[in-house]
Amino acid sequence: MTATRGRGRPRAPETDTAILTAALELFVERGVEGTSMEQVAKRAGVGKLTLYRRWSSKEDLLAQAIEQEVRAEVIPSAADVQALRPRDIVEHVLPAAAEMAASPGFRALVARIMGSAVSHPELMQVYWKHYILPRRELAAAMLRRAQQDGAVAADADLDVLIDMMAGAVTYRVLRPDPPDTAGMLRYLTAVYRQAGLYPPAADG
Amino acid sequence: MTATRGRGRPRAPETDTAILTAALELFVERGVEGTSMEQVAKRAGVGKLTLYRRWSSKEDLLAQAIEQEVRAEVIPSAADVQALRPRDIVEHVLPAAAEMAASPGFRALVARIMGSAVSHPELMQVYWKHYILPRRELAAAMLRRAQQDGAVAADADLDVLIDMMAGAVTYRVLRPDPPDTAGMLRYLTAVYRQAGLYPPAADG
Repeated sequence: MTATRGRGRPRAPETDTAILTAALELFVERGVEGTSMEQVAKRAGVGKLTLYRRWSSKEDLLAQAIEQEVRAEVIPSAADVQALRPRDIVEHVLPAAAEMAASPGFRALVARIMGSAVSHPELMQVYWKHYILPRRELAAAMLRRAQQDGAVAADADLDVLIDMMAGAVTYRVLRPDPPDTAGMLRYLTAVYRQAGLYPPAADG
Repeated sequence: MTATRGRGRPRAPETDTAILTAALELFVERGVEGTSMEQVAKRAGVGKLTLYRRWSSKEDLLAQAIEQEVRAEVIPSAADVQALRPRDIVEHVLPAAAEMAASPGFRALVARIMGSAVSHPELMQVYWKHYILPRRELAAAMLRRAQQDGAVAADADLDVLIDMMAGAVTYRVLRPDPPDTAGMLRYLTAVYRQAGLYPPAADG
């Protein structure tokens, strides 16, 4: 901690982690409008200037906090989708997806991101790029494979079908009385089946 | 304005309208957390006590403002769905739905309601009861009719399929770069077609 950078001392990495964690918590609890740089600094136990040295605005800080939260997920590769049986892929993917979709923290984060989609589209952009797009690419690979197998119609509009699958799940997560993990797994299974991605065991 | 009720003079109906309009505007602009009874009173040009005489909390006031905004819509009856050709119903329903879904005000309102789904589920409940449920009932009637006609599989899970249709539209409304009215009409048409509700002209 002897070198200098910019106007002040370099921060330890754990300071950044504390700031990003505090920012994400406040965003989930109170939304963009209910969160201020002062509150984040206070909760992270740092000075307000420490925040402004790195992030020029609350929106920049929240965008990075969201990116860090959602980008860690791992998904099957496109090569896996070609190599494995559709049924095995679905059975591999769905339990983890159900657990995430049913968790209160994820539910609250998705609600806040959707809620800021119009007032702060830059937060939705971050979520879209780092969370949604990789999963859309996986779904597209699964649907193309299912088209080859004849389980999904050759003339289906895959972009629309992916919206329908992802939209249904988002919708189910945010509607009143959300299901628990077991209920969410049944729900995801029904969505995949309706889309043509979960054939009966004999065909898988 | 000579009679008295409760602690003060009765309000003129236009006062209620001004209050509910101001509350809805502030909710859309700033979310629940960014809205206060003081701000609503100021924008409506009334005293704060006038608000509290009728609504015990900000949440009560916002719930009524949302209900008033979304309940005015008219939809085809279940009898119409049985009497008319599916194609005619779709062509009757979709242009108005596209215009609403593409309007910036609707987009912003839906974003805020989704955004408060976890922190203030009572607002989602109002939206669900007065806006979503009547439309789900219409969609269910259309899908049952389409099952009779063979356009939708007899074993389709209609609740899930309705979630997929409604979810896709909500999702499309809130994702980056939303379509204009013409683009939204094409999008809705694609969703209805994918669900089996928009058969080619020869079959309709």
